[in-house]
Parts: sequence; C-alpha cells; structure tokens
Amino acid sequence: MCRWMAWFGQPVPVEDVLFKTPHGIVDQSLHSRMGAETTNGDGFGLGWYGRGDGPGVYHSVEPAWGDANLRELAAHIESPLFLMHVRAAIGSPVQQTNCHPFRHGNWLFVHNGYVNDFHLLRRDLMLAIAPDQFAAVQGSTDTEVVFNLALTLGLQSDPIAALERTIGLIEATAAEHDVTAPVQGTFGVSDGTSLWAVRYATEGPARSLFASADVDTVKRLHPENPRLQRLGEGDRLIVSEPFADLPGAWQEIPEATAVTVRRGGAMEERPFVPRVQPHVTVTQRDPSAALNA
Amino acid sequence: MCRWMAWFGQPVPVEDVLFKTPHGIVDQSLHSRMGAETTNGDGFGLGWYGRGDGPGVYHSVEPAWGDANLRELAAHIESPLFLMHVRAAIGSPVQQTNCHPFRHGNWLFVHNGYVNDFHLLRRDLMLAIAPDQFAAVQGSTDTEVVFNLALTLGLQSDPIAALERTIGLIEATAAEHDVTAPVQGTFGVSDGTSLWAVRYATEGPARSLFASADVDTVKRLHPENPRLQRLGEGDRLIVSEPFADLPGAWQEIPEATAVTVRRGGAMEERPFVPRVQPHVTVTQRDPSAALNA
Amino acid sequence: MCRWMAWFGQPVPVEDVLFKTPHGIVDQSLHSRMGAETTNGDGFGLGWYGRGDGPGVYHSVEPAWGDANLRELAAHIESPLFLMHVRAAIGSPVQQTNCHPFRHGNWLFVHNGYVNDFHLLRRDLMLAIAPDQFAAVQGSTDTEVVFNLALTLGLQSDPIAALERTIGLIEATAAEHDVTAPVQGTFGVSDGTSLWAVRYATEGPARSLFASADVDTVKRLHPENPRLQRLGEGDRLIVSEPFADLPGAWQEIPEATAVTVRRGGAMEERPFVPRVQPHVTVTQRDPSAALNA
Amino acid sequence: MCRWMAWFGQPVPVEDVLFKTPHGIVDQSLHSRMGAETTNGDGFGLGWYGRGDGPGVYHSVEPAWGDANLRELAAHIESPLFLMHVRAAIGSPVQQTNCHPFRHGNWLFVHNGYVNDFHLLRRDLMLAIAPDQFAAVQGSTDTEVVFNLALTLGLQSDPIAALERTIGLIEATAAEHDVTAPVQGTFGVSDGTSLWAVRYATEGPARSLFASADVDTVKRLHPENPRLQRLGEGDRLIVSEPFADLPGAWQEIPEATAVTVRRGGAMEERPFVPRVQPHVTVTQRDPSAALNA
Repeated sequence: MCRWMAWFGQPVPVEDVLFKTPHGIVDQSLHSRMGAETTNGDGFGLGWYGRGDGPGVYHSVEPAWGDANLRELAAHIESPLFLMHVRAAIGSPVQQTNCHPFRHGNWLFVHNGYVNDFHLLRRDLMLAIAPDQFAAVQGSTDTEVVFNLALTLGLQSDPIAALERTIGLIEATAAEHDVTAPVQGTFGVSDGTSLWAVRYATEGPARSLFASADVDTVKRLHPENPRLQRLGEGDRLIVSEPFADLPGAWQEIPEATAVTVRRGGAMEERPFVPRVQPHVTVTQRDPSAALNA
Repeated sequence: MCRWMAWFGQPVPVEDVLFKTPHGIVDQSLHSRMGAETTNGDGFGLGWYGRGDGPGVYHSVEPAWGDANLRELAAHIESPLFLMHVRAAIGSPVQQTNCHPFRHGNWLFVHNGYVNDFHLLRRDLMLAIAPDQFAAVQGSTDTEVVFNLALTLGLQSDPIAALERTIGLIEATAAEHDVTAPVQGTFGVSDGTSLWAVRYATEGPARSLFASADVDTVKRLHPENPRLQRLGEGDRLIVSEPFADLPGAWQEIPEATAVTVRRGGAMEERPFVPRVQPHVTVTQRDPSAALNA
Repeated sequence: MCRWMAWFGQPVPVEDVLFKTPHGIVDQSLHSRMGAETTNGDGFGLGWYGRGDGPGVYHSVEPAWGDANLRELAAHIESPLFLMHVRAAIGSPVQQTNCHPFRHGNWLFVHNGYVNDFHLLRRDLMLAIAPDQFAAVQGSTDTEVVFNLALTLGLQSDPIAALERTIGLIEATAAEHDVTAPVQGTFGVSDGTSLWAVRYATEGPARSLFASADVDTVKRLHPENPRLQRLGEGDRLIVSEPFADLPGAWQEIPEATAVTVRRGGAMEERPFVPRVQPHVTVTQRDPSAALNA
Repeated sequence: MCRWMAWFGQPVPVEDVLFKTPHGIVDQSLHSRMGAETTNGDGFGLGWYGRGDGPGVYHSVEPAWGDANLRELAAHIESPLFLMHVRAAIGSPVQQTNCHPFRHGNWLFVHNGYVNDFHLLRRDLMLAIAPDQFAAVQGSTDTEVVFNLALTLGLQSDPIAALERTIGLIEATAAEHDVTAPVQGTFGVSDGTSLWAVRYATEGPARSLFASADVDTVKRLHPENPRLQRLGEGDRLIVSEPFADLPGAWQEIPEATAVTVRRGGAMEERPFVPRVQPHVTVTQRDPSAALNA
C-alpha cells in the first residue's frame, strides 16, 4: 500500500540510491517483499532539496519501474536530502495530484498506509483544515488531507506534535462516525534541514519502517561491500523496507514511535502519542433547508 | 475557456459529429474562433448514452486533436445523445478527474466558463454540498463543485430550478467574500432522456451558446449540403460555437436563458433566474482552538 | 511477459469477460500466476469487432488494473469477438504504439513472448517487410515487426501458413546472426470472422495457452456455476492463463500447434511448422562508402 | 511545426529562460507568432548538460504550457547549455520517443520542419543508417531518422559536414521517389562543448531561425531592461522565434547557413551545401519470392 524512502546525508546522485541498490525502492515498486501489496505501480513521486528555492518534486502516473524520465532525473540530480514514494492506490484515482510527496513551501510529506473509511470522514476532516489552506487541496487522497491538517495544527513549528494532534483529531472524528482502526501507517516529513518519521497504527501492527544503522557499525559489519564503504559519517536512510538483506545494517523503528534525524546523521526516538482537539461551533448554509424553501 | 457540444437525435456514429464536420469541436480544440481562448488543449471528455447502464465517459489529459483513442471510440460508438467537452484549464491541474463531462448515476454535466476567485469560495461551496455527496468530489475544478451543489439542490427533480438555486448560492457566497462577477458560463445537463442547457453570467455578456435550427429550416436553407440533408426530424445540436458558417442553421440562445430539448427535438426556452438560499447553524471542530489548547 | 485473451461467441458486454471473472485478464495484469512475470503493468490494449468499419482499438500506457477509461469502455461496449492484451515490457518503451493488439485493416494481432536478441535482428527483419508496408511500423516492438512480416508473407490469405513463413524467416535470420532460441510465444490473430492462435517456441517449452472446452462439457462439469450456465453453444475463449481453477473447463493447446476457431465455436488443431524463405539481391546506398567519398 | 531554442553561456536556472521571458518558448508552445502552426502542443522535450554523465533529457507528451513537472525541473536545474523543443505533430504519434531532443552519447539533436512525404522515403532512409545504429531508432519521426543518418555520416567528427551529407542523401533519395521539396527546417546540435545550428530548405524559404546579438550590443541597445543587463559576456541564444520584440537584440540566420557557437559566445557562420552519396549493392531476403515458393 505504498513504499517510501528518504536519504539524508552527503550529496549523492539520486540514482545511486534509487537504482544502484540491490532491492532499492524502484525494485520495490515491482517486487515489494514486506508491503501490504507486492506491486506499487500506481504512480510515484520524488521530492528533493538542491538547487533553487525549496524542494523540487517530480510526480508521475506511470509505474516507477518503467518511467524513462525518472532514470534521467535520477542520473542528473544530486541531493543531500530526498524522499521517494511509490504508490499502490486503494480507491483514489491515479493522477499526479494524488502522488506523494506533497509539498507546502519548504515542506515535503509522504505516507504509507491509510485513513480507514476515509470517504466517511473526508468532509469533517477537510472542514478542520484552516480555511485559507483549504483551497490548497488539489487531489483526493487521505494523505493530502492529513498533511493539510498537520499544517493547520502546527507542522511548521513542531512536526511531531502537529502529527500527534492530527492523528488525535482523525481518531476522534472516526469515533463519531463509528469508524474503527482509523489510522494506519508511516509518515515522512522534511523541511530540508531535518527529517522526521513516524510509525503508528490505532490498532494492530503498523506498517514497517526502518532506519539505517550507524555508518560505522554498517561499515564494520560489511567490510566486503564497496557500496557501504562509500557511506559517509552522517548518512542516514529511512525506508519502508530494507534495500537488501544486510544483517545489522537496518534497525526497525518501533511501533508508536517518532524519530528525528538531524544534519550529521544524529537520530532521536520518542514515543508518538495522538492528542485530541476540542469542539467549536460555526455557521454555514444548510442545503437541505434550501430544498424546503 | 472550454468548448462543448451536445447531440440529441437519431443514433449516429459519434465521429460524424466530432470529426466529419468542417469546424467541429475537435477542430475547435485547436482553433476556436469565439472562445475566450483559441486553444482548448488541456484534456477533454466524451459522455454518451448507448449500450450498458447509464452513460459511458471517456476522459483524457491529452489534447482532443491528437488523441488516437478518441478517433477509435468515435468511429466505433453510436449514440443518440452525447456530450463532448474540450478544456482550457485556468489554474486547476490537467487530470482526468478535472475533465468534463462529470457524471452522477444517469446524469452528465458540462460547463464552459468559471466561478470567479474560486479558491476563495471553494471551502464554503464544498460545505454546502450534501454531506453524503461530499466524498464524490474527486478533482479540483469549480465545475465539479457546481455539479455536486446542483445535485444537492435537486438537479434530479428539476435541473433548471436546481441550477437557479446553485447559481444563487454561489452569488450569495461570493457577496460574503467580496468576490464580484462570480458566475460566468454555459452549462449542459442530461439524464439520457432530455437535454438542458443554460447561458448565464452574473455580469456582462455570457459565453456564447447556440442551438441548431429546426431541421426543416436547415434543409430548406441548404439544399446543396448533403450532410445537412441527412439530418432527421428530431435532431438537435447545442454548441458553444457553431460548427460552420451556415446562415440560418444556428440560433443564438439569449443571455440568462435556459433551454430544454426533449426527445423528438422539441426545444423550450425560459428565463434563467438565480435564487438565494437561507442560512443555518452547524457544529464542527475548530482547528485554531486546538493550537491554543 | 504479457498475457492475452480472446472472446469469440455471442455478443457480450466486454466487462463480463474482463472484470466479472474471478481471475480475469485485468486481475492477471496485477497477479499473473503462470506468466514469466507476475506483473503486466506496462500498458495494455483492447481490440474489438462491433459497430463501425473494422475493429476498434483502445491502447493505454497505464496498468490495466487502474485505467478508469477501460472500465467505462468495457461497461458500454458489446462485442462477439474481442482481444485484450496486458503488457510486461522487456526493453522497449511503454507507449501506445507498442501496445497490442496491432491492427491492419480488419486484422488484429497479439503476442505473448519475444524475439530473442531482437535488437540484433531488427534491421534485417524490417528489411524483409514489404516496402509499401514499411512505413506502417510506428512503434519499436518485436511483435509489430512480426505482424508486418506476416502481412508481407500472406497473413490475409492464410494466417497460419503466413506465420509459419514468418517464424521460419526469423529463425533463419537469427541463425545468420548466431542468435539462439529466437522465437518464443503465443500469437493471436483475427479478421473478425475467425480467430487463430499459435503456440510455439524454437527451443524449450513455449508460453502457456489454453482454450475453453466445449460449452456442453463445461456446463455439465459445473452445474452450480451460474456464469458458466450462461455460456452459449458457440462461445469460445483462448487465454494465456485460465481465468479460474475449474477442472475440465480449459484444455491446454499443445506445443507447436495452431488452432482455428470458426464462428459457432468449432475449433481445429494442426501442427505449426516454420518454413524458410530464399534469398535475393537488392541495391541500396552504402553509408560507409559515403564517409570515404 | 515545432519551435526550439538553445541556451549556451553562463549556468542559469532553466526557468529563467523558459518561463521568465515575455515570449519564451513555453509561451510559444501556446501562441507562436512565426511558426507554421500557432500551437505546439503535441509534447515537448528538454535536454540539458549539467551534473552527471552526458546530457539529461526530459520528454513529455503533454503540452509544455501545462506540464507541472517542467516547471519543477526548470526551477531546480541549472545549466550552461540546454535545448528545449515544443512539438506540433504532423502525422506521427504523440509519444515520448517522438519528442526532441534526441540523444546519442553526449549528443543532442532538435529539428523544426519536416522531410516531405516521409512515409515514402522512410524505408530507404532507415536502410542507410549504419546497421549497428539501426536498433537505436525507437520512435517514428523523420527527425530521429535524420539524426541517426547524421550519426552514420560522421556527426561526431564534423556535425555540419555530416548534416550536409545527410541532407544530400535525403534529397537524392527523394529524387528517386519523385518527392519534391524534401527537406525543410532548422536543426540544432550539441555535444556539450559547442552548439551548431542549421537553417535550410530544398525549395522556398526555410523555417525562421535567430541568434541573439552580441551581449554588449544588446545591453547598449536596452539599458532599461534589467533582464538583459544580467546577460554575461559569452551568453548566446539560438531560437526559432525571438522571445520578445527587442530591436537589435536578434539577428536572423540566413537561408542555407550553418552557425557554430563556441564556449565564450563566439559564433561563426558558413554556407550550408548538401552533398550526395554514391550507391552500393547489398544482399537481402526477398519477401515476395517467399510467397511464390
């Protein structure tokens, strides 16, 4: 139900991470091993920080494995921080505005998972988006609504806290609609200077999420692997699914946990605890009254 | 800013109307003479009634003039009632979910024109959509919101009255936001048994709209034209822009006017007068309160 | 490496065969069980005989499982004879001109498999296409070249014999280039009045191919299955892979075999034996000479 | 019938040239003033030299004016040398493999114009491509064949001479087929270190082509224009159509002329004179003989 990855470290040609790894994310788009779906062929997106103001994004409705332009961009763009997402659509259309990463100013946002019975909750959740942010929603995914809620609830000041409020709001809204197990997934966020990731499910096990181990550890464990020997001090990967079976190279991020990666590779973990919002009253037109008028 | 056409009459191969006319709508997609834009190359759509339940729709993000599949479908589909729309996007993305005709059950809906400053009104207008209809909005156009408002306000019982309520609601909402001249355009609606069209602008001249004249008149005026001599008793076309310069073959639909075309070709005109809706009070979450909690 | 199917019998809504079967070809596009690849997501095509002159074709670069237009067409087109192909590209680009079925006049052509080392043989094979047919090649697949060779070698008079000559020519050309095991696959051909299918590999087992059993047999074996009870006398399916595990409902077409299905459902089998062509001499410009001039 | 442009000079964000000019090439895709067609909406391509080995290319089948990814790339890619092409298809399909620039190793190639009656000449011209280069032809345009002929005839040693041989070969082939006025257009070529452009038509006026004037001249003529004041010493533009009406800023390249632009901005002009190739004899299979066998 989607796979994503983030690179944060020394500037590298994007293709080194996307294509030149044994089980990289483009390979995962066709042959995922750990995903809810083995095929993630319903479009994809790449967001990268580099030249120019803010991050660039490339969105495509084609499967990542066959997109000729992706190979071009990956070969000719170098970046110290980028996120790639491959999508397995569950209901919403395959269109560029439904492709991750979503962007707002300097911020990028990706998600693997879903809001359960989203069609029942969509209206209430969209109403909770800040009115002047409402028109920014261009597609029809749950993720874009989650992102705009998080922006409404303070993402740009404190990403983890804002996501805790956002998930809390979704869970409270779901309860009102008798929707169970509303939130499932992993989230990736960046502003170009730090990288945040969350693993959380309201019920049951959350989608998988991994971070690369300390570079020193990785190099010591795999002295024979020239690719790993090229890793620098502060390089860090966050992935839905490890790129290869390298014992000791990946650490699983625990359930209900948020991690923060700083430039230089330092990574902090903390518990992720959704928080609930209060209610208020507003006025709006009533369409059914109109019919009786 | 878009062109559309509707055919209602004897079953004909769609290509006869789309491609085998001197200045048909596919030609208009590249060389419009009367449109606000000469090029309508930002996707298109065809909706037709024929075999199967309800209308079929074909949406494409390519320009109509170059879409190979459209030529195939037009050559192999026969229909007594179909609508074609070519789009010149003004701000919203080129994606299939933004292509007209929009559909709900047996209903098709097309629009040429715009809701002014739609981004300022979008939230309030979407809130006025019936809650259980809200999740049906998949794209980001003003037209899809207008259609879902009209469905909310009774389109399926009385299309013209519902559009009068819808335009009234949009104008009232615009007034609250200090948006001037909010509604501009022509609308086409069908349920497969009748065809309705509206020409209306809050201010200034509305986009052009024409109906073909009585078939007898057309034939008498152009005895030399074999295409026109093939027209049957009850054939009727509604178009943004006439297909060719044939004196007497087209009648302009007046400003602020709605027309109804019945099977058999009978066409009635009536004035189109927007009506306003009352207000009501509802309860929702307040995102700004959450930040202060 | 592709899956295809053909329906020939009573006119049916295309969706009944494509979507309303437990393991139909659209499902196979995502989850093939018997294919060389489990995913066939690199575009697809539908060719059908019905209204209009000759067959219609719909080609799309999107995966079949997610293409909204395919669902529309399948629900609104009825046909007594249609072929559907889902593609797993092996090297050549994902573009509509590389999607099967290929068409020439009334003829449709599909292929599952490959010409080995096609890049080494492409020039010689294209030279063998009738000169006035050469410009019809619009894409870059091996299959389109095979089809145009078969047209050159008499497809329209005797499809099986023409394919025997075509495969013979490919095998002889391959031998000159030291290419081994040049031909692998199954082929489907129709002119709208009959349906032909071939299963053949130069070396080793050929790709799988099945025909539905006699309708009477199928009904007797599965009295509890309402779908199968609706089958008519002369209905026949040819498929790369059976739609469901129904004992006795499918018969495997043997290796190196061609089958002919006539209207009414009668099916004949015969051995498929490639035949070799003689050489001739022609004159052409020599580019290397030009450089020395 | 297409528009193209090339920038060669100081590294600039691509968007500065593509989007931030009054009548830049993206605007020309919708509103060309001097082209044979006013609309160039049948796909486009960008080729740029920058990071990574060789040039990167981005090809899209959407109109340039509406392609969201192009805006992203243009804003985030910086390059000292890039070519952009917007296409008005005349017969061949709108697909990425038909989009310019075409690439071979370090070389990029664009064309505005056509080979007349290309379908009559295509086979003979493709036969003249070096056999080991033949399989590189992936699309169906005349331009890709011209490019591969030029590569066959020495493009990488002497681009102008190779194009003279190529056009000569096309004209000779056309004469054999009674095709008149075979070559029309302008060509752009680069290897990343120099830029070549040709303007030539066998008969009648050739498509328009312009070079920007000396930077000093441009600055002196337009002291009030801040954009022009930012131009550096060695910046040079070659364009199908000037970006704006700036007296003295553009110089027309004469008919039947080739120009070479070196790093640093120096530009040389020379006459462009097609040269003819001799004939040779080769052996191939004869398909018609096969039918008589």
